[in-house]
Amino acid sequence: MNNLLSPKSVAVVGASDRSGWSNSALTNFEKVGFSGDLYLVNRRGGIVHGHQAYASCAEIGAPIDLALLLVGADTLPAALEDVAAAGISTAVVLAAGFSETGDAGHRAQEQIVSLATRFGITLVGPNCLGFVNMLDKVAAWSAQLPPLMTGSVAVVSQSGATAHTIAAFAGEQGIGVSHVVSTGNEGMLDTVEMAMLLVDDPRVRSIAMFMESIRDPARFCTLARRAASLEKPVVALKVGSSVLAAEIAMSHTGALVGDDRLIDTAFAQYGVVRADSIEELVITAGLLAHTGPLPEGGLGVVSMSGGACDLIADRAENLGVELPGLAADTRLRLSEVLPNFCTVRNPLDATGAASADPSLFRDAIEAIATDPAVALTAAIHVLPTEERGDRIKQRLEIVAPAFAAAVGRTMLVDQTISVIDESTVMNMDSIGIPYAINGIHHMVQAVGHAISWSKWLRKDRGEPTTSGDRIDVDTTAAWSEADALKLLSSQGVPVVQHRHVTTQEDAVVASAELGFPVVVKLVSPEILHKSDIGGVMLNVDSEDAVRLAFERVEAAARSVPEATMDGVLVSTMRSGGLELIVGVVVDPQWGPTLAVGFGGIWVHIADDTALRILPVTKSDIAEMLSELRGASLFAGARGSKPVDMDHLAGTILDIVNLAGRLGDQLLSLEINPLRVDGSTIEALDAAIEWI
Amino acid sequence: MNNLLSPKSVAVVGASDRSGWSNSALTNFEKVGFSGDLYLVNRRGGIVHGHQAYASCAEIGAPIDLALLLVGADTLPAALEDVAAAGISTAVVLAAGFSETGDAGHRAQEQIVSLATRFGITLVGPNCLGFVNMLDKVAAWSAQLPPLMTGSVAVVSQSGATAHTIAAFAGEQGIGVSHVVSTGNEGMLDTVEMAMLLVDDPRVRSIAMFMESIRDPARFCTLARRAASLEKPVVALKVGSSVLAAEIAMSHTGALVGDDRLIDTAFAQYGVVRADSIEELVITAGLLAHTGPLPEGGLGVVSMSGGACDLIADRAENLGVELPGLAADTRLRLSEVLPNFCTVRNPLDATGAASADPSLFRDAIEAIATDPAVALTAAIHVLPTEERGDRIKQRLEIVAPAFAAAVGRTMLVDQTISVIDESTVMNMDSIGIPYAINGIHHMVQAVGHAISWSKWLRKDRGEPTTSGDRIDVDTTAAWSEADALKLLSSQGVPVVQHRHVTTQEDAVVASAELGFPVVVKLVSPEILHKSDIGGVMLNVDSEDAVRLAFERVEAAARSVPEATMDGVLVSTMRSGGLELIVGVVVDPQWGPTLAVGFGGIWVHIADDTALRILPVTKSDIAEMLSELRGASLFAGARGSKPVDMDHLAGTILDIVNLAGRLGDQLLSLEINPLRVDGSTIEALDAAIEWI
Repeated sequence: MNNLLSPKSVAVVGASDRSGWSNSALTNFEKVGFSGDLYLVNRRGGIVHGHQAYASCAEIGAPIDLALLLVGADTLPAALEDVAAAGISTAVVLAAGFSETGDAGHRAQEQIVSLATRFGITLVGPNCLGFVNMLDKVAAWSAQLPPLMTGSVAVVSQSGATAHTIAAFAGEQGIGVSHVVSTGNEGMLDTVEMAMLLVDDPRVRSIAMFMESIRDPARFCTLARRAASLEKPVVALKVGSSVLAAEIAMSHTGALVGDDRLIDTAFAQYGVVRADSIEELVITAGLLAHTGPLPEGGLGVVSMSGGACDLIADRAENLGVELPGLAADTRLRLSEVLPNFCTVRNPLDATGAASADPSLFRDAIEAIATDPAVALTAAIHVLPTEERGDRIKQRLEIVAPAFAAAVGRTMLVDQTISVIDESTVMNMDSIGIPYAINGIHHMVQAVGHAISWSKWLRKDRGEPTTSGDRIDVDTTAAWSEADALKLLSSQGVPVVQHRHVTTQEDAVVASAELGFPVVVKLVSPEILHKSDIGGVMLNVDSEDAVRLAFERVEAAARSVPEATMDGVLVSTMRSGGLELIVGVVVDPQWGPTLAVGFGGIWVHIADDTALRILPVTKSDIAEMLSELRGASLFAGARGSKPVDMDHLAGTILDIVNLAGRLGDQLLSLEINPLRVDGSTIEALDAAIEWI
Repeated sequence: MNNLLSPKSVAVVGASDRSGWSNSALTNFEKVGFSGDLYLVNRRGGIVHGHQAYASCAEIGAPIDLALLLVGADTLPAALEDVAAAGISTAVVLAAGFSETGDAGHRAQEQIVSLATRFGITLVGPNCLGFVNMLDKVAAWSAQLPPLMTGSVAVVSQSGATAHTIAAFAGEQGIGVSHVVSTGNEGMLDTVEMAMLLVDDPRVRSIAMFMESIRDPARFCTLARRAASLEKPVVALKVGSSVLAAEIAMSHTGALVGDDRLIDTAFAQYGVVRADSIEELVITAGLLAHTGPLPEGGLGVVSMSGGACDLIADRAENLGVELPGLAADTRLRLSEVLPNFCTVRNPLDATGAASADPSLFRDAIEAIATDPAVALTAAIHVLPTEERGDRIKQRLEIVAPAFAAAVGRTMLVDQTISVIDESTVMNMDSIGIPYAINGIHHMVQAVGHAISWSKWLRKDRGEPTTSGDRIDVDTTAAWSEADALKLLSSQGVPVVQHRHVTTQEDAVVASAELGFPVVVKLVSPEILHKSDIGGVMLNVDSEDAVRLAFERVEAAARSVPEATMDGVLVSTMRSGGLELIVGVVVDPQWGPTLAVGFGGIWVHIADDTALRILPVTKSDIAEMLSELRGASLFAGARGSKPVDMDHLAGTILDIVNLAGRLGDQLLSLEINPLRVDGSTIEALDAAIEWI
């Protein structure tokens, strides 16, 4: 498997002078300088592409590492049989007409996969363009290749056309790729498995992925953990954030598209950088392949244009990228270097003076790049393209020594995005400029990702505690609020004082015991949203009012034909404090997740919830609480008591652990609201649902 | 003034073989093909750039339209004197060292401006690079010009370096410019005035502006209105933030507003498109210059890649760009054209079949481009660059007829951003492809702007009513809540039942009259935020409680040394309903503004306010209410009554008109909360501040 992407001998099956795919594949092998053995197979034999073709793989009579199958869907089974007969264990399948075309195609694909499995053949595809390995000079790629540079960014994409676009864009941005892999319909290997094959290669320094779906979240996490342990970034463009894209992806490669917020959460938790455009994907992966993990600190900027500084300052604030203040020492150095009328700050406008005297620009870059608060420095200047001629090259030769002051952490940045072609890269090499990005807008974004990812790598993530023993409960029947509160209470989660009673008079007694005012709520396993049907009476403040409330709740229950009423809950009426919503929801793909947010009607407006995939630590929960836009309310708003945050995080962890002990039939455990008032924390309502 | 940018004779003052500026200027005049009279002036005379130079402008002895002054700041006064002596009425001033360098420079600039004014000279600059007029072939530009194409986008920028960057990027995107103007320190003419000179030119079809500040909002509005009346878009990249935020933040609503939000509001109200990057600025201005106002409808997309469709769908949803569903007729046409396995939708993936058969791609484009719901169609395909050779050109020749089906509303779009050079534009011209954009990500953004701007143009904006007669009030002393409520009430704005009393016993009597529970609030002109110091007692439900509340409020007042207590307000305690915040705040730059949002502690979390610069119509206010994220609450949430929206908008308009009648000493009038419950609307608290 590890050699799948570096075959030394390849059979091109379905080779034909009349096939564009075949012509492209042959041209590509030549273009990348494949030095292994290449065999052409055409069932009619004869001369193909100027060489004698074999009628079958079996006829070749030499060991072959990979078969590139250019044949159509109809002859694919026969081709696989021949591949097996020749003892070839890996095949790239171009043929389309499988799961992307609907149910019949899906069944056809299953047959192909089971055939390959029986023959012991590992399939790439079907419906894929294959792969290019620039490092080992293999191009099992059946379409025209764009101009590529060899480097350390591995590109993995479900879509072959998009793999092409990504690779072409990298080529246009002076970013070298190690591999370009398309997985197509992913009959056997998906993008995550391909990335797993690439991540350990020491020559691969970052992975750029294009994904329509994450088929196996557990495997995705394994990849993310492996990449993190090697300090290699995974940058992923995961489409399907819109409803429409989710539909398209279904028909495109037959992929399932997950809930987008959960994808965001998973990426953030596992340190995978999420990009929203091909430009962002490539520029970020390229930068991170160059820098690796950055030290602590922000972005330093030296420019000759005030306008560029304005643009960078706005963009950085917008994306939350820090432009740190400079150390006293740096400020002193800069004030010695710069003319009086320059203002010493970051971003630094070295003005036209730096244009007139490039050594001034050099000294300013060096001062900022070596500032302890600066992790990465951008020198804003046009690139030494051939068209710009010798004047720019000569100027940059004076500036270049500054790039050695903070190796791997200083780059040249042109203001707008353009092309960085091979001649520009060669000019940079000869001048001594190790890295460049085109476009302030894209640069700040990529730097933001690089800084966040590096911070994520440095973070101490701790060990989540395990939940403890399974609690044995009846998961076959629907649970009422009373059932849920009883369980919470029995397991040490604080619950508001309440009585579960079945008669009007018991309700009166209970309310007298609890003290007025009380809340009277319908208990019915069939009705989850009691308040929507008038099943919740708040502020009930006398015995008569309790009787009336009981009758109204009964009437509400009768309004729902299929519902059974199991009496009422009488509980102490609370007011003031903050209302949170705490839910453990089991996602069919990602498993148990935790959502924490502010409750009440405002939850819909504020859209202010934090989300994590479980397990989590108590400090993860504290982090979630601090992420809420309304987090300042915890400090005590308008006279309310400050919340005991440690106690709150601990209580939420208790709820999470309780959910973990309820077994795999749990669908959701939701507390809404969890009332928080100073150090008083209690569940006012709860619901448990089973699968 | 109208001929400022199209001089027929120019004197270059400070021309010298040793000056880079001078060399650049001469080269530029030649490059653009200036056919007027060009005179070189050097005080030493002699041969400059191979021509006989004049020692002064006065010596030339011919009528001259423009002086391009390349002299330094020190000799500028003498040069202006010479310019005046020669009867030249316009001068472009390159010299730096003025207001950009601080106070002394600022004074020097004022002297230069008053000198020019005295001489009757209109100045461009100082500290500017000048201007280029591609249409009339004038290049009074004193730096190296990037490669430019002639077209209909006028570029206006304060920063000369940024003007250069914008123009260069336009040149790299195949977008032709009509003018490139830099205004520098704007001693006399700012970007808005320059844009005013350009907007009436029928050859100018859009204006791309880079601004660090809007010096005169009224003039900016005049420009916006003029451009709108001509149906010409103004696209502006406004960087930085103004110094005025602090003043605005003096009152509570002001703190919610913020300076940059006001710019956003002004742009949205006056139909100016706001861009955040140079790429967005140029690509949007280029597209709009090509299309002009679009008909109603959304974006249609035809691609050969499912990945591209995914990306477009995500990006469009993210930016709120509509990808309309297709008409039955269009669907039928497409199903006849496309292979069975294609899914008929928008965005359309015509699959590899369209690559194999370009006529299929053509027919699909034509079907979508002529759909009644589609305003603009993007055909996703690589561009016919020279490097891609004849194969792509031939394919596009087959496709091109589709572009004629919806003239000016169909374009070619490459997936990622790259360069569209002159040879590509020429290839497009010869093939018959009228427009192209590079990069899906940038395209969707530009299309979104084009659709929104066109919608704005079509909107019936109505006529705001005038406020009515001035109300004579004492604006010299600070006003308490009681003063504010009294005014509101006297002017017909509904206010909660309340009594202003000064003794404990009167408070008891008042509360008995109003009925329990009541609210007891401190009245003090010096204390605006009463609740922060414990000056508000809610839910006071007995006579004893009123006495206690009075004492507590007294204590609260004593805790603020400089405050005087003017008794208490006793008002009916309200609960339920929705709480809004309505504020009229006078911005020192933009004048009176209206902010409407949800009130209470949640206002800080939800960050959910709508903002307008006054005047507004009632339907503007209705629109503001509908913009709030929590707008669904108006329909009645969790059993509360639906709000009478017409009544609410009317009440807010009454508040706005009342504010307008309070004269120009008003700083802010804020009602927080304005309680809304069904058709019951009343102010529970109000504050008025004077300048």
